[in-house]
Amino acid sequence: MANRNLNLLDYSEITGAAPIALRTHGWRAKCLQRLVRLDMPVPKTVALSFEAVRAIAAGSMPDLSGLVGRFDAGQLLSVRPSAENTDWGGPGAVLNIGMNNARYADITETHGEKVATALYLSFVQAYAQHVARLDPDMFAVSEPSPRALEAALDDYEKEMEEPFPQDPKKQLAEVLRSMARAWEGTSARLLRQAKGASAEAGLGLVVQAMAGGYGAPETGAGVIQFIEPVTGAPQITGRYAERGQGREAVSNNPQAMYLTCDPRGASLEELHPAAFQSLVRHGADCREKLREEMQIEFTVVNGEVSVLDAVKVQRNSRAAVRVAVSLAEDGIITRKEALMRVTPRALSELLHRQVDPRGPRDVLARGIAASPGAATGRLVFTSTAAQASASRGEPCILVRRETSPEDIRGMHAAAGVLTERGGMTSHAAVIGRGLGVPCIVGATGLRIDLKNRQLHTGRRILSEGDLITIDGTAGEILPGEADMLEPALDQWFTTLLDWADALRDIGVRANADTPADARIARGFKAEGIGLCRTEHMFFEDDRLTVMREMIFADTGPDRAAALARLLPMQRSDFIELFSIMEGLPVCIRLFDPPLHEFLPHTREGMKQLADALDKPLSEVVRRSEELAEFNPMLGLRGVRLGVTLPEIYEMQARAIFEATIAIGRRGGKVVPEIMIPLVSAMREVELVKARIDAVAAAVRVERGNGFEYRLGVMVETPRAALRAGEIAQHAEFMSFGTNDLTQMTYGLSRDDAGRFMSYYVQAGVFPEDPFHVLDTDGVGELLLIAAERGRRSRKSLTLSICGEHGGSPESIAFCRDAGFDYVSCSPFRVPVARLAAAQLTIKGDEASDQMPDLR
Amino acid sequence: MANRNLNLLDYSEITGAAPIALRTHGWRAKCLQRLVRLDMPVPKTVALSFEAVRAIAAGSMPDLSGLVGRFDAGQLLSVRPSAENTDWGGPGAVLNIGMNNARYADITETHGEKVATALYLSFVQAYAQHVARLDPDMFAVSEPSPRALEAALDDYEKEMEEPFPQDPKKQLAEVLRSMARAWEGTSARLLRQAKGASAEAGLGLVVQAMAGGYGAPETGAGVIQFIEPVTGAPQITGRYAERGQGREAVSNNPQAMYLTCDPRGASLEELHPAAFQSLVRHGADCREKLREEMQIEFTVVNGEVSVLDAVKVQRNSRAAVRVAVSLAEDGIITRKEALMRVTPRALSELLHRQVDPRGPRDVLARGIAASPGAATGRLVFTSTAAQASASRGEPCILVRRETSPEDIRGMHAAAGVLTERGGMTSHAAVIGRGLGVPCIVGATGLRIDLKNRQLHTGRRILSEGDLITIDGTAGEILPGEADMLEPALDQWFTTLLDWADALRDIGVRANADTPADARIARGFKAEGIGLCRTEHMFFEDDRLTVMREMIFADTGPDRAAALARLLPMQRSDFIELFSIMEGLPVCIRLFDPPLHEFLPHTREGMKQLADALDKPLSEVVRRSEELAEFNPMLGLRGVRLGVTLPEIYEMQARAIFEATIAIGRRGGKVVPEIMIPLVSAMREVELVKARIDAVAAAVRVERGNGFEYRLGVMVETPRAALRAGEIAQHAEFMSFGTNDLTQMTYGLSRDDAGRFMSYYVQAGVFPEDPFHVLDTDGVGELLLIAAERGRRSRKSLTLSICGEHGGSPESIAFCRDAGFDYVSCSPFRVPVARLAAAQLTIKGDEASDQMPDLR
Repeated sequence: MANRNLNLLDYSEITGAAPIALRTHGWRAKCLQRLVRLDMPVPKTVALSFEAVRAIAAGSMPDLSGLVGRFDAGQLLSVRPSAENTDWGGPGAVLNIGMNNARYADITETHGEKVATALYLSFVQAYAQHVARLDPDMFAVSEPSPRALEAALDDYEKEMEEPFPQDPKKQLAEVLRSMARAWEGTSARLLRQAKGASAEAGLGLVVQAMAGGYGAPETGAGVIQFIEPVTGAPQITGRYAERGQGREAVSNNPQAMYLTCDPRGASLEELHPAAFQSLVRHGADCREKLREEMQIEFTVVNGEVSVLDAVKVQRNSRAAVRVAVSLAEDGIITRKEALMRVTPRALSELLHRQVDPRGPRDVLARGIAASPGAATGRLVFTSTAAQASASRGEPCILVRRETSPEDIRGMHAAAGVLTERGGMTSHAAVIGRGLGVPCIVGATGLRIDLKNRQLHTGRRILSEGDLITIDGTAGEILPGEADMLEPALDQWFTTLLDWADALRDIGVRANADTPADARIARGFKAEGIGLCRTEHMFFEDDRLTVMREMIFADTGPDRAAALARLLPMQRSDFIELFSIMEGLPVCIRLFDPPLHEFLPHTREGMKQLADALDKPLSEVVRRSEELAEFNPMLGLRGVRLGVTLPEIYEMQARAIFEATIAIGRRGGKVVPEIMIPLVSAMREVELVKARIDAVAAAVRVERGNGFEYRLGVMVETPRAALRAGEIAQHAEFMSFGTNDLTQMTYGLSRDDAGRFMSYYVQAGVFPEDPFHVLDTDGVGELLLIAAERGRRSRKSLTLSICGEHGGSPESIAFCRDAGFDYVSCSPFRVPVARLAAAQLTIKGDEASDQMPDLR
Repeated sequence: MANRNLNLLDYSEITGAAPIALRTHGWRAKCLQRLVRLDMPVPKTVALSFEAVRAIAAGSMPDLSGLVGRFDAGQLLSVRPSAENTDWGGPGAVLNIGMNNARYADITETHGEKVATALYLSFVQAYAQHVARLDPDMFAVSEPSPRALEAALDDYEKEMEEPFPQDPKKQLAEVLRSMARAWEGTSARLLRQAKGASAEAGLGLVVQAMAGGYGAPETGAGVIQFIEPVTGAPQITGRYAERGQGREAVSNNPQAMYLTCDPRGASLEELHPAAFQSLVRHGADCREKLREEMQIEFTVVNGEVSVLDAVKVQRNSRAAVRVAVSLAEDGIITRKEALMRVTPRALSELLHRQVDPRGPRDVLARGIAASPGAATGRLVFTSTAAQASASRGEPCILVRRETSPEDIRGMHAAAGVLTERGGMTSHAAVIGRGLGVPCIVGATGLRIDLKNRQLHTGRRILSEGDLITIDGTAGEILPGEADMLEPALDQWFTTLLDWADALRDIGVRANADTPADARIARGFKAEGIGLCRTEHMFFEDDRLTVMREMIFADTGPDRAAALARLLPMQRSDFIELFSIMEGLPVCIRLFDPPLHEFLPHTREGMKQLADALDKPLSEVVRRSEELAEFNPMLGLRGVRLGVTLPEIYEMQARAIFEATIAIGRRGGKVVPEIMIPLVSAMREVELVKARIDAVAAAVRVERGNGFEYRLGVMVETPRAALRAGEIAQHAEFMSFGTNDLTQMTYGLSRDDAGRFMSYYVQAGVFPEDPFHVLDTDGVGELLLIAAERGRRSRKSLTLSICGEHGGSPESIAFCRDAGFDYVSCSPFRVPVARLAAAQLTIKGDEASDQMPDLR
C-alpha cells in the first residue's frame, strides 16, 4: 500500500454518469450522485473511494493538485465520511478547508472582520483538534475575536513547531489523512462491527465545495424533512439558521427558526418562499426517486437553495412502519420492500405503551429489559398488595427480589414488574412477556428493604405507594410519571402484517394459557395456540385446595375423587379457550410441574393446609418433605407423573374431550391437540397414548358423540430428540420445548444460570445467552436430528417449536430451514414472528432481485 | 403337526454313533452319549428329539411299539427331560414306567410284597399327579401298604372313570405327552425365557431302562462328585442310599450314607469298594473327557455300578474360578475356555466376605443389593456414632434414611451401610461401592426411629448397639452374627485375572479419590486412576474450615489467601497418590461441586461457622441463601466455577505440578492428567487450558524443573458430546462421565429418580435403570457421536468412560466396540472389568472356534 503510486489517487467528480457505487464509495457519495441525477442543485463534489482512503491511511500522501483543480480557486471545501452503511459511523465532517491568512483578508473585505474571524477561528479549532490531535481545551474561546484567532494560531505553532498550514492542498491532505486513520482506530472498528460491519468495511470520503454565503442575513443553512419522526405522519419539520453553516448550526441552536409557521417570528417559508417551495419539490422528488423519506441538508444564498446532502430520516419504529406502508401504498416501493424495511423486533415496541422519547429522562436505575412496554404505578412489594391495588383501580408496579409461581396473580394485577434478580429467562421475565406486562429484571443496583417497604436506588429511597415508571423496552427505572406514547396497533401496523401473512410460508401460533392470553393471541392473528400450559389452571385459589387434596390422597380412588372435582373446572377452561379460538387448533400440554410446586413453602402455610385438610401438621410436613426434590427440573414431573399417577392425565383428557363435544353441540368445531411433556422414551408415549385413547373411547360411548383429536409430544430432553424416530410412531406431532431442551443439553438450569450468564457472555465463553438466542450448534443440532428421524418414521409428522425462542427471527429462520410447520411464541411476539417469517420468504425467494438499499 | 405320521416318531437309541446333538436332543441326551462313548455302564437309553416332543405336545400320539421294543420285555423305564441348556428347567423325571398288576405280582415273588407295593404305589402316585393331573393329596399315604395301593388304584379309577392303565406302552405314551405339554405351559416358558431361552427352545426326552435292583441291601442309588462345591477344592462328596431309587432317594434322606468315611457307620467305599473305585475312575474320565467337574448319578446292583446320568456340579463363584483354573492348568481346557467359564459379575463375590450359603438364613428385611459383601456389626444411626464405634475397634452398621456427603467419614468408619431410601445409584450406593463397604439401600420395609435410636423391621424392633448382619450381595438384612466366608483373592483368582490381562485389548483403570482407594486399585492391578475426584479432599475437617473461608472471601486476593493455605494439603494429597500409583497414569478431575455443598445446612452449623469466621450470623445466612440453587445438578459447578473463580483451578493445577516435581526429585515419574468437568462449550476449555498452561509455565520457572502433563475434559453434557470436534482441539483426552450424561440426556436427576424408577422398570417403561445399565440407544449414541467427532478432529484423542457404568460388562463391550482406550470403574469392580474385557476379546477373536459348551 505504502508503495502505491501517489498519482493514481482514485477520485471521481460526482456527476450523473460517474462510476460511483455503494460498495466502492459509500452511501453518501452514492446518495449525492442520485441527487445530482435528480437535477438538484448540489455543489461540486468529489468522491474518494474506499481504496483511495485505505491507501491514505496506509501512509500514501496523495498529490491533490488534480482534485483541488476541480474546484474554483479559493473555494472553501468540506469533507464528509461515506461508509457503506449509514449506521457504521465515521469521523465527523470538517468544514471550511482552505481558510488561511489570504482568504481571511478577502472575507474581511467582503463580509467584515467578524464573519472572517469566526470562519478562520472555527477552522483552526477543528484542524487543531481533529488533524493535529491537540487538546481542544487549549483552543476554546468564549467569544471569537481577532485576538483569540491570533492566540490560536500562535498556540498551534508553539505546539506543532511549525506555523498553521496555509496551503489549501496541504490542509486538505492532512484532513483526509486524519479522517482515514480515525476509521482504522480500534474503538471505531469495534463500534461499527457491533452494528454488523465486516472487518474489511471501507470508508469513502466526500469533498464538497462549501456553498458560499456566510455572514449576510440572506444566507443560511438548515435541514428539512417531510414526516414527523415519532409517528411517521406527513409533516414538514426541520430548522433553518441564518448565517449558519452545517448541521451543528441548527441542531442545538435555540435561534434556529422553524421552516413553517414559527410562532417566535419569521419562518423559512415566509423569509424565502421560493427557496422553501423548491425544497418541498426536492423532498417529493427524493421520496419518489430515492424511494425513501429523506432529510435534506441545504443552504440558502441570496434566496438560492443548494442541496448539500440527504440522509434517511431518523425515525422510531412506529414511524418506520407508517413510512414503509405509505411508500408501498403510493406505489413507490413494492409490498415486499415495505416488509423488508421494518425490523421485526421493532414491532414489539408498537404493541405496548412507550415512554415518549421526546420527554426528559431521569434514570434512577437500570436492569435487563425483560418484557417490553412502559408502565407507571405505585410501588408495591407483595403480590397481595398488587392485587389489592388493582382492586382499588390503582395501577401499581410490583417489586420483588425474584418472582415464583405464587406471584403470578400479583403479576397479573400489576401494571409492571421489577425484580432485583434474574435474567432474560427468569420466571418474572418469561411470565411478564407472556402476560404482556412490562418487566425489568436483574436490576442489581436496587436494594429492597421489605421490612420498611422501601426501595433503595442508590441515589434515592422510594417507599411503598410512591409513583415510579418502568420502561421495559429500555430497561430503565424512572421516578414519578413519565410522558407516554400509546400502543400503535393502527391501520399501518395491521396492513403491514396482512401483507406479511400473504407471503410467509411457516405458521405462527401463540403460547397461551388463559382466556386473556388467547384473546390477545387472536387479536394478533395467531393461527392457533401452540402451547397451552394447563398447570397454571390449578393455581387459582379454589382449585389449589382441591389440587392439594389430590396430592394428599393416599389411594387411587381418593385421588380420583379429588380429580373429579377438578374435572368440571378444567372442562370449562377448555370450552372457553376453544370458543375464543373459533376452530383454530389448540395444543394442550398435559400437566407438567412437580407436585411440590403446589404445596405451601412456609410453616404458616403448612399449618393452614393441615387445618384445611383436617390432617395433623406432621403429616403435611412429612409429605412435603417426601415430595421435595434435589433437582426439581430433573425430577418427577411431566410424563413421569402421567405414567405413575395416570388419574391426572385421564381427568385432563376427559375434560378436553367433553369440552370438544360441548363446542360441537354449539355448532363449533375443534380438533384439540394433546401434548405429552418431558418425554424421554417411546414407551412413555405408548402408555399414555393407550390410556388417553381409552378415555376418548369411553367419552364417545357415554356421550354418543364422535370427535377427533391429535396426540403428540413435547421434545424437551436430548434423549427424546435422539429417539424421535421411534417416538414418532406414536405421536402425530412434535413440538420442541427449547427452554428445557437447552437446560438439558447444556446441563444448565435457567433459574441458576443468572449468577454467571452475564459474565459468560461478556467473556465470550458463550456467544449469547442460549436461553435467549437459540444455540443452533448444540440444541439446534438436536432439533435437526429429531426432525429428520421423526419425519423419516412418520412422513406427516407436524413439527414446531414452542420454547421462549419461538418468537425470535433467528429461531424462525432456523425452523423454516428445517422444514418446521410452525413456531409458537408468547402472544405479544406473534406480530414479530409474522413479519420475520415473511422476511425469510422474501429473502429466500428474491435474494438476487433485491437492489441495494439506501440505508 | 397333528397330521404328522405317527410312525415317524423320531427317536434314537443312544450309542456312540447315534445322531444325537445338543441342538436337536438336548444336553442330557448329548451327555449320556458322551458317557456311552467313554464306555461307562449306562443302561439302555433312547432319546426323543425336540421335534418329536413338539409333535407329541401338538397332539400326535405316537405308536411306541418300536421304541418299547428296544428294551427287554417287562423292563421298567424312566423318562427325564433334556433341554438345550441345563438352566432352562423342564418337567420332573418319572420313574418305574411299566409297573402294573402283572409286574406287581412278579416283584412280589422275587423281592417280596413290601418292595413291590412301594414301587407300584409310588408309580401310581406319580402318574396320577403328573399325567392324570389329579390332586396329589388324594394319593398321599402315611405308610405304603397293599391296602393303600388298592385304595389308590380305586381312587384313580373313580376319578378318571377308567382303570389305571396296564399297558406299558400306553403308560409311556401318556407320560411323554404330559411332559411334552408341561414344557409348553406359560409359567415354564416364562421361567426359561428369563434364563435366556428363546421362544422356540425345544425339549428332548430321554427314556432309560431302570437299572434293576430294588429292595435288597446290595442295591441302591447315589450321586458322587469330586469337588467341594463352595471352595472347588478336590474332595469326594455325595451320598448313597441303599434300596433307593433316583436323586430324591439321597437328596433329603437322613439315612443316605457318605461315600467315604461316614462317621455314622459304613460308607459306600467300605460297602462296595470295587464299585466305589470304578466311580472314581468314571469321575476322572468325565473330568478329562467331558472337560468339566461332573456329578454322576448311579446305581449299584450286586456290586455292579450303572451310570444313569451326569450333570455339571452346581458350584458357587469361588469354586467356579478354582475349577476353571485347575482344568486349564491340567491341560484339559485352554486358558481362554477357563476365562469364558467364569461370569465376570460372579467375581465381585470373591472380593468381599460373604454370608456362608451353608448356614441358616433368617431374613429380617430386604433392600437393593447396592454394594456387595457382607458385614456384621452393631447398629448405629449417625456418622458420629459410627466413627466413635470404629475408634473403639467395634465394627458397626450405619443406618441412615439416606446419606449425604457429610456422611462419608461415617461410611468409611462403618463395616456396612444400610439406608431406607435410594436406588443403585444413590449417594450411599455409589460411595459404598467406591469404598468397598457392603451396602443395602432402598430397604423400604424399614422405619428408622431416630429419637429412640431404634430400627423397626416389621417383625422386630432393634436398638442401637444390637448386632445385625447385612448381606450387600443379596440385599438381605439378618439379625445377629452370621457365618461368613472370607474373601477369596487366592492363587486361582490371581491366575485367572493374569490370563485375562494377557488377552484383553481395552485398558482398565479405577476411580480412586483417596490413598486407600488407590492402594485397593493397585492391589486389583488397575492400570492407573481414571477418575480422581478432588472435592472429597476438601471435606476433611481442617480443610473444610479453610474452604469455607474461601467461599466467604469477598475479593480475589482474600480467596487466593485461603486457597494458598489449601495448596500444601492438595499437594501432599497428590504426592501420596502419585507415590502409590508408581508411575501409572493418574487422571485428576478439577473441583466440581457447587460451593453450597460446603456450607452447613442447619441453623446450628451456621452459627458455629459465623463464630469461626468472626462474621455476623446474618451474613452467613445471606451468603448461604445466595449460593442456594434450584437445581444444583445444573448450576454453578464444574468448569463454570473454574471460569468464574479461576483461583480454585489455578491452586489445584499448581498443587498437581508441584507434586509432579516432588515425585521426580525422588526419582519417580508421573505424567498427571488434568480433567475439566462439566464442559459444554469449547471456549470453556480454551480459557481454562490457557490458565493452567500459564500456571505450568510459572511453576517450571520457579522450580527450575521440567515436567509433562496432559489436559482433557470430562464429557457430561449432551452439548459437549455434540461439540466434541471443536472441544478436542483443546483436549488430549475425553472421559465420559456417564452418570451426569445420563441425567442430562434423560432430563432425570439420579437423586430424584428413585421415587419412580423401580416402577418404571417393572412396568417396562425403561428396559433397565439407565443409571445402572448404560442406555446404549440414547446416551450411547451421544458417546458414539462424540468419539467419532473427537477422533476426527484429533487422531490421538484418548477416549474412556468413568461413570458408574464403567465396570459393567455390557458397557465395556460398548466402549470396546467404539474403540475406547480404557474404562474406569470403582476399585472393587476392576477384576470384573478385567475379566469381562478378556471375554470380549475371546468372543471377538474366536467366535467360530468355540465348541458348544456342556452347560
